[in-house]
Amino acid sequence: MKGQKTNLNNNHCAMARALDVIGDWWSLLIVREALYGRRRFNEFQKSLGLAKNILASRLRKLVDCGVMAAVPAPDQAAHKEYLLTEKGEQLHVLMVALYQWGEANCFAPNERPITLVDRAHGAPLQPLQVKAQDGRIIGPKDMLAV
Amino acid sequence: MKGQKTNLNNNHCAMARALDVIGDWWSLLIVREALYGRRRFNEFQKSLGLAKNILASRLRKLVDCGVMAAVPAPDQAAHKEYLLTEKGEQLHVLMVALYQWGEANCFAPNERPITLVDRAHGAPLQPLQVKAQDGRIIGPKDMLAV
Repeated sequence: MKGQKTNLNNNHCAMARALDVIGDWWSLLIVREALYGRRRFNEFQKSLGLAKNILASRLRKLVDCGVMAAVPAPDQAAHKEYLLTEKGEQLHVLMVALYQWGEANCFAPNERPITLVDRAHGAPLQPLQVKAQDGRIIGPKDMLAV
Repeated sequence: MKGQKTNLNNNHCAMARALDVIGDWWSLLIVREALYGRRRFNEFQKSLGLAKNILASRLRKLVDCGVMAAVPAPDQAAHKEYLLTEKGEQLHVLMVALYQWGEANCFAPNERPITLVDRAHGAPLQPLQVKAQDGRIIGPKDMLAV
């Protein structure tokens, strides 16, 4: 994350490493836009409304980390397209967790959140559940970091 | 997020709102430490090794957002303790998503990540799965924001 002095990549905590790669607001919003089908610099820029230099640095970092790949556009060799790699696509679980927490906790009763639905039926997704190997639901106090 | 000019709270996207509250590296690491049982300013400071002024501002924001509550310590009235609220505890799903993505994507084969296990049996958790109402597994391309 730009401006951060600490490098969490030396940390053996899997969460800290994940945050080192995508623990930046804009990076996750770029990944979200990519999941929605945006591929070009200008498309990201228009939909997120962020400064070109910030977008460029975030895209570069996402490419360096293997979350996105920069490939030549099929029609115009002068343009590049930014596609999610498999590593990047796997962030969809994290994104659903963010959406669901935000929906449950960050809206007044009279507000209608934009949220994620099942593309096939337009129906809400099931709430994510943390489960043990034997299927028990794991709450916040049932976990341990080892 | 300190230093950010854009306020995502006006945004109706549930993910953007969630990021507005906890889309900051340190905030999530503080929540992680609180889930592990830390309660006092000095405990957070020691375990995270971050500057006191940054920790203070992040704790203040987490309290303002209703993720944590500052309460008097049971033994010494001069100390405060920081406890997760229910809203804060519900972040455990997001944390598991971060751990699991980090574990799968940010470690070399010879490295052993610190990760989350089921406290009762010390066994790894099931990987989180996004599911539709009818139980179908939802992949990154099967979702739509509405």
